[in-house]
Parts: sequence; C-alpha cells; structure tokens
Amino acid sequence: MVTSTRTGRRPGPGTARDDILNTARALFARDGFRGTTMRAVAEGAGVDPALVTHYFGSKQGLFDAVLELPFDPRTVFQTLVAAGTEELGERLVRFFLSTWTSDGTAGPLATLVRTVINEPTAARTLERLLVQDGLGPALASAGLDEPELRAAMIASQLVGMGLLRFVLRIEPLASCSDDLAVANFGPAIQRFVTAPLAAQGGME
Amino acid sequence: MVTSTRTGRRPGPGTARDDILNTARALFARDGFRGTTMRAVAEGAGVDPALVTHYFGSKQGLFDAVLELPFDPRTVFQTLVAAGTEELGERLVRFFLSTWTSDGTAGPLATLVRTVINEPTAARTLERLLVQDGLGPALASAGLDEPELRAAMIASQLVGMGLLRFVLRIEPLASCSDDLAVANFGPAIQRFVTAPLAAQGGME
Repeated sequence: MVTSTRTGRRPGPGTARDDILNTARALFARDGFRGTTMRAVAEGAGVDPALVTHYFGSKQGLFDAVLELPFDPRTVFQTLVAAGTEELGERLVRFFLSTWTSDGTAGPLATLVRTVINEPTAARTLERLLVQDGLGPALASAGLDEPELRAAMIASQLVGMGLLRFVLRIEPLASCSDDLAVANFGPAIQRFVTAPLAAQGGME
Repeated sequence: MVTSTRTGRRPGPGTARDDILNTARALFARDGFRGTTMRAVAEGAGVDPALVTHYFGSKQGLFDAVLELPFDPRTVFQTLVAAGTEELGERLVRFFLSTWTSDGTAGPLATLVRTVINEPTAARTLERLLVQDGLGPALASAGLDEPELRAAMIASQLVGMGLLRFVLRIEPLASCSDDLAVANFGPAIQRFVTAPLAAQGGME
C-alpha cells in the first residue's frame, strides 16, 4: 500500500476512508470521471453512500483526494535536486519508477495518467504537481534557466515512459529491468536538466 | 481532413462511411471503447445503424478502422530513416508534430493515445504501428543495434510529448512553437537513435 507522507490527511490504513479511496482510484482509472458514480464507489467499498459524501463532499472532492500523490511534490523534488544536478536524471527516473510501482500494481501515477486523459481538471493537477509546484521551482532553485520548460520536458519523458511501460505495456519497455530503464532514460532526462535549451524568446 | 495514403480503404471524402468514422473517432476519444455504442455513432453520423454494421461489422471493427493512421508505418518510417540517421531525431519530431495536428485539432494520434489508455487491443495496435511494423524495422535496416528498444524509447518520448502538448495542454509545452519543440526534443530523440544503449543482456 501507498503510505502518505502528509500528516493529518489520512486516518491510517484499513479504515473506511481508505477503502473508499482505493475503490474510487480503481473505478476512476477504469471508467473515467464521468463513468464513475458515488453510489458505485460506496458499493465497491462496502459502505453507505452517505459516508462517501461525508468524507469527500462530492465526486469532484473524491476525485481530488484520489489524485493526491503519496509524496509532496514541493519537498520531494527539492530533495532530489538538492543532492546535486549532475546525476539528477538517473535519480528522477529511479524515483519515478519506484512511485509507479509502489502499491504493487502500477501505483498512483498510473491512475493519474489513466484518468487525466479525458479530465481537464486532472491535467491541471498534473501540471501543478509536476511543473509548477514540484520540479519547476526545484530546478529554479538550482539556478537552471527555463526551469518550467525543463520541468515540462522532463515530465513528458517520464510520463511517456510510464505510460508505455506500465499502462500500455509496450515491449521491450514493459519487461525490461528498472536498472535498464534508469541506464537508458537517465541520460535522456539529464540532458533536459542541464543541456542548453532553445527558449521561446530565442526562436522568434 | 486526414487524407489516406492507402488505396482502396476509403471511398473518398464526404461519404457516409467517412461521416461514421469521424463521429466514431470523436466518441471513442471522449467516451472510450466501452462508453461508445454503435447506435450513438449512427445517430451522430445521421445514418441508419444498419449502415454502421454493414461497413464495419462490429464495434471492434469500427474501432480498428478508427485507429487506422493516415500514413502507412511500414513506409513512412523507412522513408524518414532512408534520408540518413544523422538528423533523424529532428525529422521524427517534425513528422510526429505534423501528424498530430493534421486535422486541425489534435489529429488521429491524439485519438489513438486518448483511446489506448484503457484499451489493451489499442495498445497492441500502437505497439505494432510504432515499434514492430514501423520504426523498429526501419532502424534495423539502418544497421542500428537494439532497434526495437530504440523504437520503444523514441515512441515513449514522442507519445509523452504529444500527450502533454496536445491532449493535456501542459504549459509551457502546449503553446510553444513547433520549431521550438523540434529544437528541444530533436536532440533527445537523436540520442535514442544513435547513442550507445544499455541492453537487457548487458545488465544481468
């Protein structure tokens, strides 16, 4: 199971709230936002629908709760970057891989990517987590230019890798080892961290 | 509109068959495979449901037809690679960008990516198009080692870029120019074409 590093948000494992969240995560990933009902989540979690409303207010509230990642993007990326930018590419790939598989199946990021495809609100969450609150400020604090462009490019490669490896299971990426993925994608991400970029101003 | 380069598959623009395909493409992308009915496609296209069955047999047949790309992956990648592998990265990015935007919105690849997320059969189509029939053999013909691994890594970056830029519209990728995207992603793809790779055998 995923362990939250945020305090006060989850009352501990095995509670009805966790059961609701786990059921909702699976249903949102399978049926999308529109195809998922509060009633179906309650049934799947074996609780009264009123309890779902009590905890999360609305389907949107439930959805936002499901999209909470099991790490705080403001601190985790700062920590990764603070260890230096030289091998940051490899560390980012390894961290990303570990997050996808942290619950034994494909992890919360898989749910996020599966769900965001047709949900603009979820896409904004991804943008905020990966670019604006998370990696962008961390890269800026390391003194790198174009931190948000770099963060978005890094996110595009990490999300694409996760999508093909874990969600679509496209070979030979699906079955290669984590070490192999780190060895091959690490240098690609590293380029996006430190290589000179073409920026919008310079192209016009 | 998308123009097919395959002969004999589409009877020309403006026909009922095209209307059905365009409607189905929009509905599959919005509602997924499970959420789309033959009846809804017929209604959207303004035709009798029997005509949808006549042309495509089943929902699966209709889905397969929607996933036909407007280019033949066996020839287009061979052509791109035959021009030399030195600037192949830039050519691949530019081709990919043009394909996503070829119908004025986000193109057939956007539909494919939106739809494949929850459709294993569609993921196999993507695997075949991008890795097995398409780019993999083209890279092999250029004498590159690990052509399918290279093809899958290239696909992961192209799909991730397309997803963030066109589907999720994550900034600053969503609004940067094609030239800027080519300038920044081209060298990344080029690495996957020609840089030494770690291969599964060497990691174990």
